[in-house]
Amino acid sequence: MLTVFSSSHHLHHGKELKDGALTPSFEEPGRADTILRRVRAVGLGNVIACRPFGLAHYIGAHSERYVRFLSTAWQQWSAGGRTSDALPLVWPVRNMRDDIEPSVIEGKLGYFSMDAGAPITAHTWNAVAESANLALTGAELVLEGARSAFALCRPPGHHAGREYMGGYCYLNNAAIAASHAIAKGARRVAVLDVDFHHGNGTQDIFYERPDVLTVSIHGDPSVSYPYFSGNADERGSHAGTGFNLNLPLAKGTDWAAYTQALKLACQAVAAHAPDLLVVSLGVDTFENDPISHFQLKSDDFSRLGDQIASIRCPTLFAMEGGYMVDEIGINAVNVLQGFEARG
Amino acid sequence: MLTVFSSSHHLHHGKELKDGALTPSFEEPGRADTILRRVRAVGLGNVIACRPFGLAHYIGAHSERYVRFLSTAWQQWSAGGRTSDALPLVWPVRNMRDDIEPSVIEGKLGYFSMDAGAPITAHTWNAVAESANLALTGAELVLEGARSAFALCRPPGHHAGREYMGGYCYLNNAAIAASHAIAKGARRVAVLDVDFHHGNGTQDIFYERPDVLTVSIHGDPSVSYPYFSGNADERGSHAGTGFNLNLPLAKGTDWAAYTQALKLACQAVAAHAPDLLVVSLGVDTFENDPISHFQLKSDDFSRLGDQIASIRCPTLFAMEGGYMVDEIGINAVNVLQGFEARG
Repeated sequence: MLTVFSSSHHLHHGKELKDGALTPSFEEPGRADTILRRVRAVGLGNVIACRPFGLAHYIGAHSERYVRFLSTAWQQWSAGGRTSDALPLVWPVRNMRDDIEPSVIEGKLGYFSMDAGAPITAHTWNAVAESANLALTGAELVLEGARSAFALCRPPGHHAGREYMGGYCYLNNAAIAASHAIAKGARRVAVLDVDFHHGNGTQDIFYERPDVLTVSIHGDPSVSYPYFSGNADERGSHAGTGFNLNLPLAKGTDWAAYTQALKLACQAVAAHAPDLLVVSLGVDTFENDPISHFQLKSDDFSRLGDQIASIRCPTLFAMEGGYMVDEIGINAVNVLQGFEARG
Repeated sequence: MLTVFSSSHHLHHGKELKDGALTPSFEEPGRADTILRRVRAVGLGNVIACRPFGLAHYIGAHSERYVRFLSTAWQQWSAGGRTSDALPLVWPVRNMRDDIEPSVIEGKLGYFSMDAGAPITAHTWNAVAESANLALTGAELVLEGARSAFALCRPPGHHAGREYMGGYCYLNNAAIAASHAIAKGARRVAVLDVDFHHGNGTQDIFYERPDVLTVSIHGDPSVSYPYFSGNADERGSHAGTGFNLNLPLAKGTDWAAYTQALKLACQAVAAHAPDLLVVSLGVDTFENDPISHFQLKSDDFSRLGDQIASIRCPTLFAMEGGYMVDEIGINAVNVLQGFEARG
């Protein structure tokens, strides 16, 4: 399996609000580097650079004005001399208005976000755009005939909605890859999200579309971030009704319970008969993850990969979360090797 | 004019996210103490303690579940040993769900807030409840025949909506006083908000009601916090249509422009013929305020009080914002003296 990687991810490491203090994000450069080392250590396959893509490729999954905001936010934020991470202050909740974009950066930051967990630093945009380009490259490899590819994306993407950043995510790499596949002629695409957290952004982007099936297995939102998305009764709307499947699982879920949900998810993907499957690959379902509460063991990730391979569909893996840096390489690559082992 | 005051406000001083760092809030104890000193220095009138009120008096303006959340949030947050301010992490924006209350405190904090600007500390609730009780006491004084009263509230209240905290506000003191007046037999109440920031919480609480007119003069939301509320086309809905008036003003507004908007506001209040007028008294319209951008001078605040007095309506002043601590006493008391001077 080819891995698509860029060292540009080092350009981004922000701060986040955690338990009442601003501290360096759990989502940090060591994550991607650890995975890359493991990819090389096990000889998964060649590591290649990404192809060039531009702003136009991010529009569709995202709105034009959101992409414009993201690509210029730091410039606007720092224009007055600020050097600290750009973080939003206030959000358009409840009956507040989300139909008028504020004209100042302090307002735009809240307008285009769902939390204070997507800090924008001086070079965040470069890392973000390159991360999306990794997914786009991976999608093209698979569309061109590869059985699978691994986009080692960082920052991750699945919390980013059509018009909002949040949860370490800015551009939704998986959704951008799925949209690109449709633009390139794929009739149907499926996104299977196995990150511990609900893929609310991916759901948001495709909620009204029948051509992209979105399936997510995740911690029950009543007790898990992002709290306000990911319930089982969110099934899509309009033409997309029935094309969104959420499988929320209880605190402490182990492999025995997880594999049942994964079976349902794989059945739903197979029934959709996609030309491309994009797997939002988070490994924060690991038993020792510092911010999650599932109980998967390292060997379980090999089984997870095998189960995904049983769908027998061209598959792009796009890296999402996983915050136990020591084990993230083993667990992520176990999924990929488990996938490959089923010939 | 009687001033209702409680030193319980000292129990609350949180941190806020400002320009990418957590720092002690601009909304700090010195604000109320400075105003109290000025009240005494000019001999405005007696300073009295508040009457006893309880949770039931906050419900109506707020939902029962929100009051329950506020009154127990610190207990839930600190149960696991946390000692830092409780701050929300993520908000139900855009298409995310605001119909299901999360079961854990980390989710509840975002569910019941609009920003990260309402930190909850160990004794915040005591200060918050006492602040509401000051407004309730002031309302009763006026309903009992006083021409006016001053509730020296801290924390302020006008950003707090029916089910959310934010912008230094937890319980909406002015809205609670207005609701109490209606419960005590007032047929109509008006709330006039002269704080620099839009009184989004007060608008939210009374948006569908014709008995409480809400009028706010404030910085245009396209360039001013809270950004997502306060436009001129927000006129109320359902039975409340026509009973909300927003007068957003441009950056740098001085007294000449301000007084025109104030005249319109006072006309609208007079036309409503309220049994009680509640003034949300913020003095962050002052030219040197550190977080606002109007250009009112200290003498202008006396004129502001005089103009409000021209409505000739029983009036409760409830303190809101104003962050230039050195001048806050002079400016706030200038309004009250200006009001009183018109006999």
